[in-house]
Amino acid sequence: MFPKNTWYVACTPDELEQQPLGRQICGEHMVFFRGPQGEVAAVENYCPHRGAPLSLGRVVDGQLVCGYHGLVMGCDGKTVEMPGQRVRGFPANKNYRAVERYGFIWVWPGDQALADPALIPHLEWAVSDQWAYGGGLFHINCDYRLMIDNLMDLTHETYVHASSIGQKEIDEIAPVTSVVGDEVVTTRHMENIMAPPFWRMALRGNNLADDVPVDRWQICRFTPPSHVLIEVGVAHAGQGGYEADASCKASSIVVDFITPETETSIWYFWGMARNFNPADAELTASIREGQGKIFSEDLEMLEQQQRNLLRHPERQLLKLNIDAGGVQSRKILERLIAAEAAGGGALIASSH
Amino acid sequence: MFPKNTWYVACTPDELEQQPLGRQICGEHMVFFRGPQGEVAAVENYCPHRGAPLSLGRVVDGQLVCGYHGLVMGCDGKTVEMPGQRVRGFPANKNYRAVERYGFIWVWPGDQALADPALIPHLEWAVSDQWAYGGGLFHINCDYRLMIDNLMDLTHETYVHASSIGQKEIDEIAPVTSVVGDEVVTTRHMENIMAPPFWRMALRGNNLADDVPVDRWQICRFTPPSHVLIEVGVAHAGQGGYEADASCKASSIVVDFITPETETSIWYFWGMARNFNPADAELTASIREGQGKIFSEDLEMLEQQQRNLLRHPERQLLKLNIDAGGVQSRKILERLIAAEAAGGGALIASSH
Amino acid sequence: MFPKNTWYVACTPDELEQQPLGRQICGEHMVFFRGPQGEVAAVENYCPHRGAPLSLGRVVDGQLVCGYHGLVMGCDGKTVEMPGQRVRGFPANKNYRAVERYGFIWVWPGDQALADPALIPHLEWAVSDQWAYGGGLFHINCDYRLMIDNLMDLTHETYVHASSIGQKEIDEIAPVTSVVGDEVVTTRHMENIMAPPFWRMALRGNNLADDVPVDRWQICRFTPPSHVLIEVGVAHAGQGGYEADASCKASSIVVDFITPETETSIWYFWGMARNFNPADAELTASIREGQGKIFSEDLEMLEQQQRNLLRHPERQLLKLNIDAGGVQSRKILERLIAAEAAGGGALIASSH
Repeated sequence: MFPKNTWYVACTPDELEQQPLGRQICGEHMVFFRGPQGEVAAVENYCPHRGAPLSLGRVVDGQLVCGYHGLVMGCDGKTVEMPGQRVRGFPANKNYRAVERYGFIWVWPGDQALADPALIPHLEWAVSDQWAYGGGLFHINCDYRLMIDNLMDLTHETYVHASSIGQKEIDEIAPVTSVVGDEVVTTRHMENIMAPPFWRMALRGNNLADDVPVDRWQICRFTPPSHVLIEVGVAHAGQGGYEADASCKASSIVVDFITPETETSIWYFWGMARNFNPADAELTASIREGQGKIFSEDLEMLEQQQRNLLRHPERQLLKLNIDAGGVQSRKILERLIAAEAAGGGALIASSH
Repeated sequence: MFPKNTWYVACTPDELEQQPLGRQICGEHMVFFRGPQGEVAAVENYCPHRGAPLSLGRVVDGQLVCGYHGLVMGCDGKTVEMPGQRVRGFPANKNYRAVERYGFIWVWPGDQALADPALIPHLEWAVSDQWAYGGGLFHINCDYRLMIDNLMDLTHETYVHASSIGQKEIDEIAPVTSVVGDEVVTTRHMENIMAPPFWRMALRGNNLADDVPVDRWQICRFTPPSHVLIEVGVAHAGQGGYEADASCKASSIVVDFITPETETSIWYFWGMARNFNPADAELTASIREGQGKIFSEDLEMLEQQQRNLLRHPERQLLKLNIDAGGVQSRKILERLIAAEAAGGGALIASSH
Repeated sequence: MFPKNTWYVACTPDELEQQPLGRQICGEHMVFFRGPQGEVAAVENYCPHRGAPLSLGRVVDGQLVCGYHGLVMGCDGKTVEMPGQRVRGFPANKNYRAVERYGFIWVWPGDQALADPALIPHLEWAVSDQWAYGGGLFHINCDYRLMIDNLMDLTHETYVHASSIGQKEIDEIAPVTSVVGDEVVTTRHMENIMAPPFWRMALRGNNLADDVPVDRWQICRFTPPSHVLIEVGVAHAGQGGYEADASCKASSIVVDFITPETETSIWYFWGMARNFNPADAELTASIREGQGKIFSEDLEMLEQQQRNLLRHPERQLLKLNIDAGGVQSRKILERLIAAEAAGGGALIASSH
């Protein structure tokens, strides 16, 4: 169960560079390509002629030429032409509203009439030259809500990511969860602790001592349908923590866009935005590599968890205080899905 | 849906050389082997003793010895003997009529009483020393009719095989389809064009200039159940095209025997017969290699098309003029399948 | 269909050395680990917090720490603690009675109240220093009863294992099957024959001539639920065969513990116990290697047989004299399964 009248990240511009891209999103088989002005288009990945996948075709002058018999598909899902054929009577493909913004291609898998680009959340880090971003994409066989749970409860860092960002102090400080409108925020502040390896690397990357006590924070923000942006960082202890001056901290935003492929699989766009040394491409690469390694540690856990849950549909997940972020996020999703099912259009408010 | 009271190509003699061969054909799990006089036999791939696959056994003196406990199976599906056992009461295996002819093993998966070898189509190229043949076998996960469609509409060459046999002129000339009895013929003649790479290679193979305009032809012949033989060739332009003297053309027959494995998978026997330089084994090998590469380009398209169609069983394929060959072939198949279901025996007339 | 109120071999101590071990047994997803005193524990492989697989966690001081959020699971299936949580209300995991004995971990997948370690069969070869043992584990996709059939009818050696332990004389001597209580014994004695390669190797391993006639024996003993121990050996001919003095024979026990994973898959613990040259570790290794190779020859046969049987659920397996061992074993299993279904507790008597 996922809302469909909302924006999801579909792919990155890199993925569209050479070829059209076939990708299933929210159960819809789509093909993405660039139209005549370079704008992004998405239509059903199904040739109206004989059902061939249009993603095996190629893009010529902003139109998608089917790789089987040359039907030419336009950005609007209508057949433009086909060698030797009159195409006026051809059935149209469903098309999807797609928008390129912030270094991602966004798609609205539901009712296109409701697709308002203004509802794409503003991402300051993606437009400011004070920030640098690096990230990647994983395919994971799990319900998208399991990944939301994962990210809204960072106590798992102590166990899943013990050698990089985990530390026992995470477990010792209870997180605080609050809900404002459709946003859920789960916060944890740890004071006067030693930084774990990943954060020592980040301190050094910002030319700061890494062998002194720090204050560490995690501020997880869920917004529908399944974006989790997490402010994380460390500051030399006693300098104000999260509020400390930029000169004595290393902080970033963990970026997580979770896009359902099916009920039990996702496209997981992960990354990190940082506002120190933004021009240091080597640092971006090394953070990206470290984060990719860390996030890959979640994969097997999530996939096996999913299989366990499918085996025991009757069992309830516990809802502890540490789970409050995920629990509240799921409540918002339930409300949106119900509203959508009731035909309410379920416009999702922009945030940030 | 496929007719079963008809001859299909089951395998090649090479495949029977060392061992019995297990192969599913039209949903029947068969094992092929050579009997006492070297004749081909086919029985259910199931040992009446404990259900072991007989294809894991070995052939001894023209009988199939089960590789599990030594039951000896005869060509007629009856147990001949078994160490220490009286076998008279053993249940008999279904057996299938199989015939070796034209360099292939043919099998009749349906009612054996109707299996008349005279119904195997005559293949002149397979018996004349004026012809040479080379070919191969692919397993493809698609309905056999999708492959018939593919071969009866060669406009796909322009898109799927752009670098070898495709050229834009194919699209520009509409094909002509005619039906005579159970045979469907789709024809296309292109005049005064430049030959694409594969045909330039063939011209050189026949010691002809490859840099002059040619006339090119494609004559696709479907006969039930799923044989598609395609006369293809190029002649130096203005010499009569298809009718031109052998000294100024390179022509061949593309041979396609499509054997359903299940409703959504096939054994695809492909090859090319040519009547120029038939003794040139190196040329045979190089044509075979080129054709194998070309035909492998269809695989992903057909398999993804099949998956798309399974996702959308409610959608109709379009039936354009270029699809007429496949459409007419399917009509004949529907008629034969209906007749067979009605108990009519559905003898399939020989052709060629 | 398998009995669950009985002891199965679950794993070997080696498999528990570093990490907890997740394994499905009789349809139950279990995780095995060592408790505070090194004793073996088995609980459901499901974290009561969020359904994560406990087998991805680690063992700390004899408790299983979930690798996701640190829930601490005790040997009894109850949550011991969890960072920052009160765990008293947490639902308990099913736990299973597990016992380490004879170099294996045994588990009782059914009603724990009935689990009596005294019911584990006595294995003299596993406790006496007159014996040496080597073995391994295969996963096979077949019903556990197909493996019992396999082992209770060794005529298959002639066909499946022709190059090692097979010989035509096996087929020529009919086996004799007897049932005493819940034990089935199938016996075959071959006199004055030449030993096949594996047994020649074993004779040499016992410093005996390998090029003289021998008497050979096979005594297969089935005991529920699915243990098959086979006394096998050769003695120089005329010295009393099975009863011959140890100085002129090479004999061993083929050890087979077959543990159902699902209805159509098994964990197959195979090995060989010998009472000649027990201290010769090199001989143990070379026998183990030879046996592993031999037993791997059964895999494809069993898996393909299983698929054939699933395709033809209506067909009956033949029940020949050579099949009597398997047939009688299945009768005992049917009786035990029926008794268990009737709530009888189905205590399985110890034997040997």
